[in-house]
Amino acid sequence: MILAKIGRFSLRPSPIVSSGSAKWFASGHNYVTVEPDSEMDNVAIVKMQKKPFNVLCTDMLQQLTTTFQELPKEKKYKAAILTSNIPGVFSAGLDIMSVYGRTSDEIYSFAMDIQNAWIALYGNPMITVAGINGTSPAAGCLLALSCDHRIMAEGKFGIGFNETKVGFVPRFWMKNTMQNVIGFRKTEKALQEGTLFTPSQAKEIGLVDVVAPMDQIIPSCRDFIKQYLKLPYGPRSMTKQMLRQDTIKQLKSAMKEDAEASALYLSDPAFQKVLGSYVAAMSEGKA
Amino acid sequence: MILAKIGRFSLRPSPIVSSGSAKWFASGHNYVTVEPDSEMDNVAIVKMQKKPFNVLCTDMLQQLTTTFQELPKEKKYKAAILTSNIPGVFSAGLDIMSVYGRTSDEIYSFAMDIQNAWIALYGNPMITVAGINGTSPAAGCLLALSCDHRIMAEGKFGIGFNETKVGFVPRFWMKNTMQNVIGFRKTEKALQEGTLFTPSQAKEIGLVDVVAPMDQIIPSCRDFIKQYLKLPYGPRSMTKQMLRQDTIKQLKSAMKEDAEASALYLSDPAFQKVLGSYVAAMSEGKA
Amino acid sequence: MILAKIGRFSLRPSPIVSSGSAKWFASGHNYVTVEPDSEMDNVAIVKMQKKPFNVLCTDMLQQLTTTFQELPKEKKYKAAILTSNIPGVFSAGLDIMSVYGRTSDEIYSFAMDIQNAWIALYGNPMITVAGINGTSPAAGCLLALSCDHRIMAEGKFGIGFNETKVGFVPRFWMKNTMQNVIGFRKTEKALQEGTLFTPSQAKEIGLVDVVAPMDQIIPSCRDFIKQYLKLPYGPRSMTKQMLRQDTIKQLKSAMKEDAEASALYLSDPAFQKVLGSYVAAMSEGKA
Repeated sequence: MILAKIGRFSLRPSPIVSSGSAKWFASGHNYVTVEPDSEMDNVAIVKMQKKPFNVLCTDMLQQLTTTFQELPKEKKYKAAILTSNIPGVFSAGLDIMSVYGRTSDEIYSFAMDIQNAWIALYGNPMITVAGINGTSPAAGCLLALSCDHRIMAEGKFGIGFNETKVGFVPRFWMKNTMQNVIGFRKTEKALQEGTLFTPSQAKEIGLVDVVAPMDQIIPSCRDFIKQYLKLPYGPRSMTKQMLRQDTIKQLKSAMKEDAEASALYLSDPAFQKVLGSYVAAMSEGKA
Repeated sequence: MILAKIGRFSLRPSPIVSSGSAKWFASGHNYVTVEPDSEMDNVAIVKMQKKPFNVLCTDMLQQLTTTFQELPKEKKYKAAILTSNIPGVFSAGLDIMSVYGRTSDEIYSFAMDIQNAWIALYGNPMITVAGINGTSPAAGCLLALSCDHRIMAEGKFGIGFNETKVGFVPRFWMKNTMQNVIGFRKTEKALQEGTLFTPSQAKEIGLVDVVAPMDQIIPSCRDFIKQYLKLPYGPRSMTKQMLRQDTIKQLKSAMKEDAEASALYLSDPAFQKVLGSYVAAMSEGKA
Repeated sequence: MILAKIGRFSLRPSPIVSSGSAKWFASGHNYVTVEPDSEMDNVAIVKMQKKPFNVLCTDMLQQLTTTFQELPKEKKYKAAILTSNIPGVFSAGLDIMSVYGRTSDEIYSFAMDIQNAWIALYGNPMITVAGINGTSPAAGCLLALSCDHRIMAEGKFGIGFNETKVGFVPRFWMKNTMQNVIGFRKTEKALQEGTLFTPSQAKEIGLVDVVAPMDQIIPSCRDFIKQYLKLPYGPRSMTKQMLRQDTIKQLKSAMKEDAEASALYLSDPAFQKVLGSYVAAMSEGKA
């Protein structure tokens, strides 16, 4: 089964969904795999697998976008589990190298990729569940928050928008996505403080719905999906989109301005300098 | 005492409020009765009484609209208790027969009736309390949520927006009304899942304010009203309207589009077919 | 150190920040003092001191506005503690004498002063903490809610928007400020009821963050600030402003209309009459 219409991403590596096989992409890097769940064949398991930390680079964001745009067109799938093929890390967030040393235009384009991935996932008509099998900061947390339900692994993992701690400012629609889950006041605190919550703290404030042992993540995702599959698919799906449409419209009406603001801020020499120190520290294993 | 100005509903059965008597409507079906409370004469008891389940048909919606538009003009009344004359059912929601087999124009007109009833109740200047003496799904729940305070009877009763379970999609302003009470995330779950909450669950998530034995519903409503009558009437009333104006404005600026969307969706042959099976099942006592 | 640019308030008494000294204003009444904290010199202590109850008159509002507009320009300060020099009263809210017997134009101008003070504080780039060392009704509560964090003194003190109880209607942006902290439903109840919460009730619903003994207010404010000073100042500050920008924009796009509505309502002879009785009662020590 081939996802034929890749649309504007046709020049990019595109996911091939083959029934149960391990071949996922036509060419290039396969950062995202899509396969039917072994137990429920109307459930797609979408795995992020960019070593070592699933950082979201342009290719990976575009593969996620394509995946979540194309999957709903497959009649076969009613639900998707978004998880990581690198247990211990769900996604470390945006790829700093897609911003460091890049031109304003490159950053603008990267900002658009992030927006598109979010729109494809947050407004997705399918039942979407995040199987958060590891740490999930920043845009990793955004992906999780954009699903319908969040199941996080017990352990020394963190989840949250820690942008301020590393010198970034979350975009307004990231804020809105969190606010829709935990409310304004908790979001205001969490974002200013750049908090990474432990699984139990995340459960406590409603940032995740369930905390489960690592080996129960996928079974727990299935349990949730089984309940949701009992609901009439169309009305549930349209209800979800009705609920999220205001938040999506707010970004859609300002995508260009939002990407421009990111490009302007992130390409600033002062910010690039800070980023340089951070990259240097990373390469020395200090960050 | 006669509610003289019925405005554009003058051709419809219109409520006549007679002091303490049992005559409520000038002619036709009397689906809504309005009488002064036996203990507090500035409190109007508004009872829905369309057997067997208080389904909201055009007449009943228009009578509710007229009632809540006209009552505030009566100097006598400062508060209204909205309840059911059919203990066990508050209201079963919209009348499916007002949609099944109807033309697009008829459905459009019915959608407008729902909007108008909601606007008249949600923006009502009086103190409004829902005495939820029975099950209250879908638009029944909407009526309850549109009051200032909700008191629900103990028992095997459910309350919530169960639209998705029966194939409908709640309108955005119904979503907003629930969101204003229990927040976005709980609303997102409740609407997708079409949950009917038990009284204690409803209390737990804030969907109702008080759960009381059936015979204490009206006394509990009175207790709430007594507290609110101590507040300066005008400032409280204007404060309530200030609080709710954004939510009301959002519908008022899109009434036509919203009714058109309902008409388009509900008159679709595929949807009508589903509805047909449902109606057949009902007539056989299976639904 | 002098706050040189007072802008449009140049004809008004303006605050002079002198290192550690007690001289705060160039001339006229000194209703607001600004001095560096004795323990943390990048923290400004902003004290309200208009006897007997810190009512917010034109001068005081303008001094607060100037203070919160100018302080962020001082490189020295990263944080501000807003508190009262009159223990037992944080601020009793707006000065009734700025409304009673005043012309519509005077009330309009006063309404603008309130808006400007709120904008300067709510959108402030600094870390702001309210050290609520006493009762804080109405606009006093607004000032507290406009900070980043609220620490309230144990004792027989109340906090909340009690406008309805004294015949006022809170403005929509005051409502929004509270809603951002405790959510819509609790705000709807609190505003209609005009509730003044005890410190422990306020903590319970999230209206304040910490309740502490009176002599621990400033140390608790410092504890919070110490944590926030560890965060990168720019990103935290921009994140806060991103979070609050929608709420501020909503007022900024309607300042004139909002002030006109206040002027119209408050200058009405019927309202002035009510206000007259209230003022008479106050002067007799009954209110």
